[in-house]
Amino acid sequence: MTLPPIMIEPAVRAALLEDLGRAGDITTDAVIPAAARFDGVIAARQSGVVAGIDAARLAFRLLDPAIQFHTERPDGTPVAGGDIVARIAGPARGILSAERVALNFLCRLSGIASATARLVDAAKPHRARIVCTRKTTPGLRLFEKHAVRAGGGVNHRFGLDDAVLIKDNHIAVAGGIRPAVERAKAAIGHLVKIEIEVDTLSQLEEVLALPVDVVLLDNMTPDLLARAVAMVGGRMLTEASGRVSETSVRAIAATGVDYISSGWITHSAPILDLGLDV
Amino acid sequence: MTLPPIMIEPAVRAALLEDLGRAGDITTDAVIPAAARFDGVIAARQSGVVAGIDAARLAFRLLDPAIQFHTERPDGTPVAGGDIVARIAGPARGILSAERVALNFLCRLSGIASATARLVDAAKPHRARIVCTRKTTPGLRLFEKHAVRAGGGVNHRFGLDDAVLIKDNHIAVAGGIRPAVERAKAAIGHLVKIEIEVDTLSQLEEVLALPVDVVLLDNMTPDLLARAVAMVGGRMLTEASGRVSETSVRAIAATGVDYISSGWITHSAPILDLGLDV
Amino acid sequence: MTLPPIMIEPAVRAALLEDLGRAGDITTDAVIPAAARFDGVIAARQSGVVAGIDAARLAFRLLDPAIQFHTERPDGTPVAGGDIVARIAGPARGILSAERVALNFLCRLSGIASATARLVDAAKPHRARIVCTRKTTPGLRLFEKHAVRAGGGVNHRFGLDDAVLIKDNHIAVAGGIRPAVERAKAAIGHLVKIEIEVDTLSQLEEVLALPVDVVLLDNMTPDLLARAVAMVGGRMLTEASGRVSETSVRAIAATGVDYISSGWITHSAPILDLGLDV
Amino acid sequence: MTLPPIMIEPAVRAALLEDLGRAGDITTDAVIPAAARFDGVIAARQSGVVAGIDAARLAFRLLDPAIQFHTERPDGTPVAGGDIVARIAGPARGILSAERVALNFLCRLSGIASATARLVDAAKPHRARIVCTRKTTPGLRLFEKHAVRAGGGVNHRFGLDDAVLIKDNHIAVAGGIRPAVERAKAAIGHLVKIEIEVDTLSQLEEVLALPVDVVLLDNMTPDLLARAVAMVGGRMLTEASGRVSETSVRAIAATGVDYISSGWITHSAPILDLGLDV
Amino acid sequence: MTLPPIMIEPAVRAALLEDLGRAGDITTDAVIPAAARFDGVIAARQSGVVAGIDAARLAFRLLDPAIQFHTERPDGTPVAGGDIVARIAGPARGILSAERVALNFLCRLSGIASATARLVDAAKPHRARIVCTRKTTPGLRLFEKHAVRAGGGVNHRFGLDDAVLIKDNHIAVAGGIRPAVERAKAAIGHLVKIEIEVDTLSQLEEVLALPVDVVLLDNMTPDLLARAVAMVGGRMLTEASGRVSETSVRAIAATGVDYISSGWITHSAPILDLGLDV
Amino acid sequence: MTLPPIMIEPAVRAALLEDLGRAGDITTDAVIPAAARFDGVIAARQSGVVAGIDAARLAFRLLDPAIQFHTERPDGTPVAGGDIVARIAGPARGILSAERVALNFLCRLSGIASATARLVDAAKPHRARIVCTRKTTPGLRLFEKHAVRAGGGVNHRFGLDDAVLIKDNHIAVAGGIRPAVERAKAAIGHLVKIEIEVDTLSQLEEVLALPVDVVLLDNMTPDLLARAVAMVGGRMLTEASGRVSETSVRAIAATGVDYISSGWITHSAPILDLGLDV
Repeated sequence: MTLPPIMIEPAVRAALLEDLGRAGDITTDAVIPAAARFDGVIAARQSGVVAGIDAARLAFRLLDPAIQFHTERPDGTPVAGGDIVARIAGPARGILSAERVALNFLCRLSGIASATARLVDAAKPHRARIVCTRKTTPGLRLFEKHAVRAGGGVNHRFGLDDAVLIKDNHIAVAGGIRPAVERAKAAIGHLVKIEIEVDTLSQLEEVLALPVDVVLLDNMTPDLLARAVAMVGGRMLTEASGRVSETSVRAIAATGVDYISSGWITHSAPILDLGLDV
Repeated sequence: MTLPPIMIEPAVRAALLEDLGRAGDITTDAVIPAAARFDGVIAARQSGVVAGIDAARLAFRLLDPAIQFHTERPDGTPVAGGDIVARIAGPARGILSAERVALNFLCRLSGIASATARLVDAAKPHRARIVCTRKTTPGLRLFEKHAVRAGGGVNHRFGLDDAVLIKDNHIAVAGGIRPAVERAKAAIGHLVKIEIEVDTLSQLEEVLALPVDVVLLDNMTPDLLARAVAMVGGRMLTEASGRVSETSVRAIAATGVDYISSGWITHSAPILDLGLDV
Repeated sequence: MTLPPIMIEPAVRAALLEDLGRAGDITTDAVIPAAARFDGVIAARQSGVVAGIDAARLAFRLLDPAIQFHTERPDGTPVAGGDIVARIAGPARGILSAERVALNFLCRLSGIASATARLVDAAKPHRARIVCTRKTTPGLRLFEKHAVRAGGGVNHRFGLDDAVLIKDNHIAVAGGIRPAVERAKAAIGHLVKIEIEVDTLSQLEEVLALPVDVVLLDNMTPDLLARAVAMVGGRMLTEASGRVSETSVRAIAATGVDYISSGWITHSAPILDLGLDV
Repeated sequence: MTLPPIMIEPAVRAALLEDLGRAGDITTDAVIPAAARFDGVIAARQSGVVAGIDAARLAFRLLDPAIQFHTERPDGTPVAGGDIVARIAGPARGILSAERVALNFLCRLSGIASATARLVDAAKPHRARIVCTRKTTPGLRLFEKHAVRAGGGVNHRFGLDDAVLIKDNHIAVAGGIRPAVERAKAAIGHLVKIEIEVDTLSQLEEVLALPVDVVLLDNMTPDLLARAVAMVGGRMLTEASGRVSETSVRAIAATGVDYISSGWITHSAPILDLGLDV
Repeated sequence: MTLPPIMIEPAVRAALLEDLGRAGDITTDAVIPAAARFDGVIAARQSGVVAGIDAARLAFRLLDPAIQFHTERPDGTPVAGGDIVARIAGPARGILSAERVALNFLCRLSGIASATARLVDAAKPHRARIVCTRKTTPGLRLFEKHAVRAGGGVNHRFGLDDAVLIKDNHIAVAGGIRPAVERAKAAIGHLVKIEIEVDTLSQLEEVLALPVDVVLLDNMTPDLLARAVAMVGGRMLTEASGRVSETSVRAIAATGVDYISSGWITHSAPILDLGLDV
Repeated sequence: MTLPPIMIEPAVRAALLEDLGRAGDITTDAVIPAAARFDGVIAARQSGVVAGIDAARLAFRLLDPAIQFHTERPDGTPVAGGDIVARIAGPARGILSAERVALNFLCRLSGIASATARLVDAAKPHRARIVCTRKTTPGLRLFEKHAVRAGGGVNHRFGLDDAVLIKDNHIAVAGGIRPAVERAKAAIGHLVKIEIEVDTLSQLEEVLALPVDVVLLDNMTPDLLARAVAMVGGRMLTEASGRVSETSVRAIAATGVDYISSGWITHSAPILDLGLDV
């Protein structure tokens, strides 16, 4: 599970330049001799799942191609506190100057992977899969969607253009579920799926008669969800959203829903603590 | 407290293009008539402090300049659940297409401001001020530093180039505290300050004899911190870091330290929940 | 049918700068007085379907916001030779300097819309719809996909990331149709469709037992196509490709296939001739 | 005949990112094992002239530097159907993901070179050389001008800034041929040439008394052209434009004109069909 | 004499962002109330010729569109110390934040225009015109070429691509003057001129028999230059270069040479001192 | 003293593309055989101090990685006329095409370093150090600040965001020195210094009672400066500005001031003449 460097390099390069500013790393330039070397490791300080190791490696190597970076735990690997994730060696200046940017990517993305994995584990006895949303950090969607996969989750839409998702505001403005679905069906290509959000069983009733691929059951209690899943009866895929947390996810999964989507795993997951040690 | 549009526009524009992808908002284009209008509000769903309102407004207006956006609660304002943060009116298509990007900025930045405000409040009986770190989201440092100010915090360095901060790895490679500080002092300009990290009182002893502006007391217990602050005796500014949380911050502040820095407020603060309602 | 300016502006701006070079329009600057005005029309010199009018307008207005541009025939409108597509008035310098870039977009995109419309018309008695491919001009995919819709066609994938399309080379390297489809099914999200290319009826036989949304029948004669469509019997969508031309398309459509894809409409369509007249 | 990579890389990189989108090549990532290799050739499927081979090579190598690409027929080489243009070997994933972008450049540019070569051949008994125009694809002018040279043609202006070309609209607004030329002559540097468009012999008469380097004889019949060329008598260079096609070009060349310019070779040339085979 | 905003905006925007850094103008934000207004003038502090007024205006208006900027002396106007060049009014914050960038453009470009004007004046009794070179500031060629015109000079090549200039190193590697000119003549289009550099009269002799438009007489004494000009006898344009200064230029012009090129006017001209006053 | 390539590459790349334009180096491409090699040196033609050697090397290597570039005199080294600064060997085309851009960086930056060194030398018997200002070339601040260091100078602010500098206009709008300083002190972080400009001794008197790090003594005569320095008595750092030239600097330094800032070293320093010789 890797991303081609051509796709991640622009954001990593921009992050380095953001940190270097106009004058560069004035501490390291003044304090560290040009010939000094550094040998160290990136180690986990708590348990979780790794993601973003390629971005971290790229951060070091864009700053100085002489830096050696050896991945010990690739993206998707579970780690415990103390585990070595990567070994790094080379000119001390470059390593110290790139450290923060590398860790900013790695800790954040590993935090997302770890949060995803916790939901995945909690849902495990059931068939439901955990999916992400578009509630991602501006500019980092590619990375965060990838981190969700590293944590065992599944990606929802990458943007507004790769599937139709008709939400409550669309239905309100369009004048109802049927006209909304019919207009969507007429406009899209044959490789595009249609999902629609419903809040009630009567809305669901109306959807079941329409050419919809996925129905999003929003903010329903587990009981209501279970009735909705039964009503659908496998005629379309079901996705639950709203009030999804580490504590609630198992009960939601137990309703038999196919997918459970969580904004929390991308917008509010705490980082996974990793650090650079000599 | 505002950021000039020329500084925030590139990131907001990029976030919109990231979400629009190559085909744009295919749902809205298909389902919503071109002439439909939308009148709504952005409302808080929980209490906290607002930040990022300018980015949100820009997201709507970059997508369609015909959208009217009226800020009710500018950055830095405390809100309670249900409070209206902004009013928005105009072409429904543009509003629905920009909604997610606007909220992604607003919820994340308000989350940072709110987390900062919680630490600020907890430390309040004491003089200590809350400062952020460079543990920010790649590409969004400007926004997140601004959100920290909105929450009542103070900004630390914006990057590697605007002050000297000598950390443990620098000291190790440079061969000690004294050579590190002396090299830094010789290299920098007269408008640059020097901060150095110490872990022990004996290191602090050594620092007190050197031309340093701020000493960073890292990972010390409140007891040790209090002794360190006493040793410094106002000869330089003191900053505490490590193990800073909503529960620990008051005890740290009580030691008399001048500044308390927290990575958590930028790297792990949950979002503040805000939504767009008709 | 419009594209938000934020999506098309970068390419239009880049095209203007490409043409202006480093010294700008040295002819117009020297020859045309600054105060001179120009009133003119963009007129079709042959019949076809218009596309790209928004890009043309943007070209003029990015060069000089004082230029007035009134669209007479929006994208998707059929025109005959002599028809006025837009009226334009304002400072002569700006109009003459932007003319070529505006027409380069408009003529090329109208050429694609017109070619698409000719295929659509030829297929009309039948249900088959005309779809485009990824054989587009580097950098202009958004514009060209839009032009296909303006001509009455339907868009296929916008890129490698918005649907699975398993082609002959994938099947060869993956070791067969079944393993290829199974791996794809396991990896993708619930909003992504799967299409697979087959060249023979025996391959089609194998596909019919798999969870595939669309089958691409490549380079088959009309007779073979008709047999394939019958075999499928509506269990999945069918798409024909290969040897599609203005003369062959009707026979292909007569086989009952659902979609006919053509690279020719984007990679080899001649422009529609339009010009700027006083 | 090569273009420095620094000049072509931005467009090739942008084209790859346009195709990869936000999620990358989801088909190849799912279906093709990471260790799989691919050995193949790019072969012509019809006869013509090659152009764009450097862009094709760069597309593969930007995606994965481990891909080997050996050019068999460099730009400017005539090929027949079945001829091998390049050999390619390396990781299957990278090759399959870059294939379409590489071919989009190569087929389009080879189409332009081939169209140019057909005009060049048709004009051959005569002195006239084939030149291109500014009717190029937005964003690809560098590539298309290069393809014209690969086909044996000569480049006209690269943009509005590298020579003066006074056209009918300029003359109309400037108030006549003489004031237009005089203003141009006064404004430009000594390394810039002046060309002016005329439609009639009486306009040509007026031009012959002015300091003009090239006269553009627009939309004249061969008879009229021949009279115009005789009138000029070698005092300035002559260029014919308008109604230039594969069938008309020989008669135009026979008039003795020095240059024949064609927009068709860049704006409407069909691609040269080339494909990637195992 | 103006440059279209679309051409100058990128460099002005980049210069503002370079100065604003990541935190913006922290002095002005802290010290100046948001409602404060500023009325002032940009005044010359010494005599010279103005250039860059459009860049200065754009700097203010990009930072805050509410700033009013009224040009009193457009580019190309001579000014004396104390003359008001522009009037400016609006929000004090924006004006103070943009001031330095605006003046950096205006003072530098006016310095170039003023230096050019001094050479132009010194050469005035003679026909020779002053031309610039490619010895410009990286990234600002457009602006500096424009400033040369504002000072009464003429532009030489804008880059390596808009005319042929065969220099000593080219001749050495190409194996002589004749092969160099012949290869150039065969390769270029009919709208491209050829210039060649010679150091001696015998080289000039050889050049006079070749199809060259301009001969560059490099580093010759006025005596030698006069003999060279006489040898050429109007058969091609003559340009002198080397050792051109305010004191030497008149003697060089007196030789009858057509053009005198100076790198000094762009690479070493001191700024024209202008400042912002209340 | 080096700058990481990631920081300087964008400007060097942009400068190359600015010079190559759309068609590249048409002279070299036509005249120089592809296989020709060039061995040469970059030599100083006058004495001074080198700066910008890394930008020069990068210019050659970005154009053709096969070019070998060996630095003989790194940044900060004094050179005399005739000294060899770098040796260069490789494909003649690439070397000749990159020559001008490489020299444009090197000559300009060495000119700044040399001007700085002249001021540094003149001030030498005294403690005063030479500092630069924000009067730099738009887009090249990083390079020019670095050149000042190479010449023995010290950098002042890199931009508006890395220290507070309260100037006369700020004081006027803020309503006095005290409110300006107090507002600044309240707003900034603990790693930011405050400098304030004064023109008179009575202003200085007021400043001495305030929490200011540096006082800028603007446009004072040496006599006045000496009295000001005495008044300060080491309580804050002192910086002199205004009327600083090669002739005046020694007298200013003799006043005992800590820093002397000069805009001239960046905005008006003539280039150091260096050239490429076979």
